[in-house]
Amino acid sequence: MGKLQNLISIHDLDRETIDLILRTAEGMEKAAIERSQDLRSKIMAALFFEASTRTRLSFESAMLRLGGSVLGFADVTTTSAGVKGETLADTIRTVERYADIIVIRHPLDGSARVAAEFAEIPVINAGSGAEEHPTQALLDLYSIKKQKGTIDGLSISLCGDLRYGRTVHSLGIALGYYDVSITLAAPPSLRMQPAIVNVMKNAGIKVEEVDTVDDAVATADVVYMTRIQKERFPDVREYTAVQGKFRIGSEEVAKMKDDAIILHPLPRVDELDAAVDSTPQAKYFDQVYNGVITRMAILKLMLG
Amino acid sequence: MGKLQNLISIHDLDRETIDLILRTAEGMEKAAIERSQDLRSKIMAALFFEASTRTRLSFESAMLRLGGSVLGFADVTTTSAGVKGETLADTIRTVERYADIIVIRHPLDGSARVAAEFAEIPVINAGSGAEEHPTQALLDLYSIKKQKGTIDGLSISLCGDLRYGRTVHSLGIALGYYDVSITLAAPPSLRMQPAIVNVMKNAGIKVEEVDTVDDAVATADVVYMTRIQKERFPDVREYTAVQGKFRIGSEEVAKMKDDAIILHPLPRVDELDAAVDSTPQAKYFDQVYNGVITRMAILKLMLG
Amino acid sequence: MGKLQNLISIHDLDRETIDLILRTAEGMEKAAIERSQDLRSKIMAALFFEASTRTRLSFESAMLRLGGSVLGFADVTTTSAGVKGETLADTIRTVERYADIIVIRHPLDGSARVAAEFAEIPVINAGSGAEEHPTQALLDLYSIKKQKGTIDGLSISLCGDLRYGRTVHSLGIALGYYDVSITLAAPPSLRMQPAIVNVMKNAGIKVEEVDTVDDAVATADVVYMTRIQKERFPDVREYTAVQGKFRIGSEEVAKMKDDAIILHPLPRVDELDAAVDSTPQAKYFDQVYNGVITRMAILKLMLG
Repeated sequence: MGKLQNLISIHDLDRETIDLILRTAEGMEKAAIERSQDLRSKIMAALFFEASTRTRLSFESAMLRLGGSVLGFADVTTTSAGVKGETLADTIRTVERYADIIVIRHPLDGSARVAAEFAEIPVINAGSGAEEHPTQALLDLYSIKKQKGTIDGLSISLCGDLRYGRTVHSLGIALGYYDVSITLAAPPSLRMQPAIVNVMKNAGIKVEEVDTVDDAVATADVVYMTRIQKERFPDVREYTAVQGKFRIGSEEVAKMKDDAIILHPLPRVDELDAAVDSTPQAKYFDQVYNGVITRMAILKLMLG
Repeated sequence: MGKLQNLISIHDLDRETIDLILRTAEGMEKAAIERSQDLRSKIMAALFFEASTRTRLSFESAMLRLGGSVLGFADVTTTSAGVKGETLADTIRTVERYADIIVIRHPLDGSARVAAEFAEIPVINAGSGAEEHPTQALLDLYSIKKQKGTIDGLSISLCGDLRYGRTVHSLGIALGYYDVSITLAAPPSLRMQPAIVNVMKNAGIKVEEVDTVDDAVATADVVYMTRIQKERFPDVREYTAVQGKFRIGSEEVAKMKDDAIILHPLPRVDELDAAVDSTPQAKYFDQVYNGVITRMAILKLMLG
Repeated sequence: MGKLQNLISIHDLDRETIDLILRTAEGMEKAAIERSQDLRSKIMAALFFEASTRTRLSFESAMLRLGGSVLGFADVTTTSAGVKGETLADTIRTVERYADIIVIRHPLDGSARVAAEFAEIPVINAGSGAEEHPTQALLDLYSIKKQKGTIDGLSISLCGDLRYGRTVHSLGIALGYYDVSITLAAPPSLRMQPAIVNVMKNAGIKVEEVDTVDDAVATADVVYMTRIQKERFPDVREYTAVQGKFRIGSEEVAKMKDDAIILHPLPRVDELDAAVDSTPQAKYFDQVYNGVITRMAILKLMLG
């Protein structure tokens, strides 16, 4: 499918392509357990210019469950790029000779797109800069659909750091393709950029902005929580003031609908209490597994 | 076999389970050469929160020889755990979605048990803190049995740093299940903790404590040498005084029985002279290979 | 084939062996695409005591395309060798129990040969110290033969840092087996050592030494460019003076023969302009792929 030559930004995907990925992911549930050999002898290059356990291992597990192999690096300090000042373009034009597909994580915005421009093999963005993490958005959508049966018609709350959290940006854009109502719950200084809010509104979505998690949980079908990082606040007192209002514990879960689900891109720190883990609403570790399933689908569609 | 759901401590194993592992290891000698496909498409997650070439590569080799695959990290600085302060429990509940078994090495005592408590897939302790390294003890037992035909009836000397060396602790406990006599040779300040000596004595083993390697080698069937680390001595003169008495060279080998064997968990520094390597008693590099065989048996029993 | 028990230095290879490797590489072109299973279940240990993306990933890709597996380390700081002061001999005698072949990269001259002396399994030198990088020389020869159909009869220019560049040393020696004429273009302080020049001359090769790239490109069939590192010059003004004369841009390409080819071991910095990449002469990224092919041939010959 030509539409998925590369996977760089959620902005590049239309509803049809997203639906194809989600439908393919459903078919991967069985392959993940039975360990298909669909990508046998295919090689995935995992180029992680920035530390990440979760995303790297998730992609590796997806590739191995399809019978493929993995090479790459997890640490830029052991690479020529780190050591000898090679350009990203040259690294890509080299690595594409070693593999069938490139998965790249890079600290700079736009780096994954540069990689895709130079590579003749498919490129997947596994997180670049502050803006894009499209496979996370897709696995979030898949998690919602798997748990709730549908995405259309749901009430979804995005909570926490909506300004700097790249997962909520990609997810927000993707939700624009669906008939949902969205509540954005963030501290004043960490509100979602108006540009992204407008994309959602222009897509016909009802968007409401609130100041606390409490205002966001009661009617939600999906509560998507993210971490608020201390470093974002110039004044530590502001952080302390905000922290208690953006935390989900047993008390907040009690206010949720019985069939609501809680998602979180992880890792979490204090914003999601360990006591929540045993509630029926907690689906964030299942979400980790859904990440493997969704990435299997993406690899299969791009390589199969 | 329910007994080997996890492998966390040598204390958890009874004689029957140890014998099963050793018997299974015998059967692995052929599989290691022929490269069985018994664990084809199974995935092992190797989580090394602490540097280790030997143990990590040994497990990886074992898994690959059974047809399985490996993912993980060798360096905690490239992980979310290192970077973002994620708890071990969360790391484990994430990684278990990527793999079929977890092998963990961690600098803190008790960490492997914590991992096993949170994981729904099997966990193997590949060394945690100062106390436990159960697969090393099992491969030591397997090396003794392979070379001497039996463990019962042997005279075994444990030499060097018996206080801080975690391999001799686990091995000492394991030998408690066998009808052996044990000589402990250590400098006064590096003697084995009385608690561990008592476990051996209570198991009915004859234990003798001596002050030099010389007193330990003449009648031994097995001489198990370990490294004495300079850093253990507050006063460097004490180290120098002790060093010469805890060293095996050609002279010490000449005093040994012809069919005695020398083992060492490696790496070694000065305590085992390179001249010993070519003697028939030197079995420490074979012991490295026995580590692969024993770990194949453990992986097979836990996953097969 | 006994001649290729180990691959440590280009000096160890005779013409017959080199031709066998190049001929085997031709046969690998198809296997690289079809992903042969010739080395299925064989294990390659990649021991990189020195940072290198390119060479490590090239070997890994070669091994994976033959159906084999890889273990090892990319970063000496996570190894016992780095942490506990183990000798190279002991590391090798350990790792050989984990694998079927060892690929070693080490900062010290002679280290690969030491490894081969201690190992009972085959050892490949993936770059040791300043002198040897034999698989690079072989892939360079293969690239020349693949592009030009033959090596004999060609006019070949080696340009840049001919004093410290280890790839041109190995390549220079290897070209001594062929009927070629060689032009050496280097700044005065970075000329090739007379000892290596003499090896070439004694092999019956016509060698000419010039001072600029310009003098080296007009009549060449092959222009082999290398990087000139600023650090090599005690006085930065000397570097600046030299830099402009050892740079290939569109202007230099225009002076070349239409069917000339440009090779470079990569990574490059400024000495090879990005504008050159789209010229028909630019073959350095194909050379990267030829590295995979050549290493497949070497692995197959040593393990098959």
